[in-house]
Amino acid sequence: MKIQIDEAGLRLRPLYGIGNVEPGDDLSKIIAGAAKQSGVELRDGVLVVCQKIISKADGRLVDLSTIEPSEEAIRIAGEDDKDPRHVEVVLRETRKIVRRGHGVMICETHHGYICANAGVDLSNAPGEQFAVLLPIDCDVSARALKSDLEHRGAENIAVVVTDTFGRPWREGLVDMSVGSAGIEPISDHRGEVDLAGRELQVTATATVDQLAAGAGILMVKDSGIPAVFVEGLAPGGDGATGDMLRDPAEDLFR
Amino acid sequence: MKIQIDEAGLRLRPLYGIGNVEPGDDLSKIIAGAAKQSGVELRDGVLVVCQKIISKADGRLVDLSTIEPSEEAIRIAGEDDKDPRHVEVVLRETRKIVRRGHGVMICETHHGYICANAGVDLSNAPGEQFAVLLPIDCDVSARALKSDLEHRGAENIAVVVTDTFGRPWREGLVDMSVGSAGIEPISDHRGEVDLAGRELQVTATATVDQLAAGAGILMVKDSGIPAVFVEGLAPGGDGATGDMLRDPAEDLFR
Repeated sequence: MKIQIDEAGLRLRPLYGIGNVEPGDDLSKIIAGAAKQSGVELRDGVLVVCQKIISKADGRLVDLSTIEPSEEAIRIAGEDDKDPRHVEVVLRETRKIVRRGHGVMICETHHGYICANAGVDLSNAPGEQFAVLLPIDCDVSARALKSDLEHRGAENIAVVVTDTFGRPWREGLVDMSVGSAGIEPISDHRGEVDLAGRELQVTATATVDQLAAGAGILMVKDSGIPAVFVEGLAPGGDGATGDMLRDPAEDLFR
Repeated sequence: MKIQIDEAGLRLRPLYGIGNVEPGDDLSKIIAGAAKQSGVELRDGVLVVCQKIISKADGRLVDLSTIEPSEEAIRIAGEDDKDPRHVEVVLRETRKIVRRGHGVMICETHHGYICANAGVDLSNAPGEQFAVLLPIDCDVSARALKSDLEHRGAENIAVVVTDTFGRPWREGLVDMSVGSAGIEPISDHRGEVDLAGRELQVTATATVDQLAAGAGILMVKDSGIPAVFVEGLAPGGDGATGDMLRDPAEDLFR
């Protein structure tokens, strides 16, 4: 399915005023309020949201003082100079350790995402000892947020939930989608023709990851902008980001 | 160095009217004309350009009818059901084959980029038998284009040259930077504090790749939009995209 893009291009608008999100908070209320305060109408576009505020609203926080690290966690933490309780939480979120080295753990999460530390961040609030986990199912979280916002008046929107990932071969982090709703994660242009009537050869574009990365420019982690509304791109179709995961049997890098 | 972002966010503006680029064309003249036609002022922002038009202007085209494939190219082409002349061109652009399988060659180019087919595309024009190679040095191409555009009146711009890459573990392609000028490829926010006074824990953000991916939403290959101007982000600093490549000794996926 082809995405419809406005001739004038895209606008990426930061949503101000979201502040700290606490377990049990109604995220749709907070985001609708932030959009209003920022002069943004949640209509005909894509809301890009950092996973961290969804995780916090969902209570996906672990108090490290309650964690009893396993022998494996203690061993890895010793080798990598980490907090064994953090490593223990990472191991609990991990289906398989894909690589370890240079103090880095690249893990496959129970969702199937492959990322450092299974997506488990440590809270940076002073005096706090919390680990923030990825949502249990980020596609379900995206669908729920889209539905809740529509009940608050949003119209024809998609939702993309993002996290910040490292990549093989390149330094620096990029934002990628970990969950989506109301948009095809991949736009397949094969078989279409260009302006000159030639058949497009491009294979499938990872639209939700392109959106995540573009919005990520405005959402530098912990900077106070955990959500961006992308105008100029009419969403359509549906499909889970989880469905973008490559079949391990066809993956050359496992 | 921190990038300066406009409070209102970013605008990603497609440049219309670039059309077919031929070897020897003055790309700065074409892009300046397209910007004018599209009502875009090339000022205080980042020009994102698909590598293909730079390669074409630079004459980085190979007529496949002139190519004598090596035994290795013939063997690989036979195994993968490809044109042996295309494989030969790919091998010539390759420093090292990183992986082969499922009909895909993941190559390290002489620049050090790791991508399918060493970035060599086949032209899709009917009756043509050309391969399009990556520019010889995309950072040099970016600097030259920035300088040429400044001579034509552009002010305070950065240039990011992009190509479309697959990724391990996920289906779908994203645009990534292969060359840049006038912008720090990586924005390092470590040590800064957020609005609440807490230290940012994020490591370095790959700004040029986030820009490439965001602009890539508008630049679907061969769709007639090979350049996008990003407004709302004042460029600054400098540094080559080539410097983002991870030291192979620290890479867990070679």
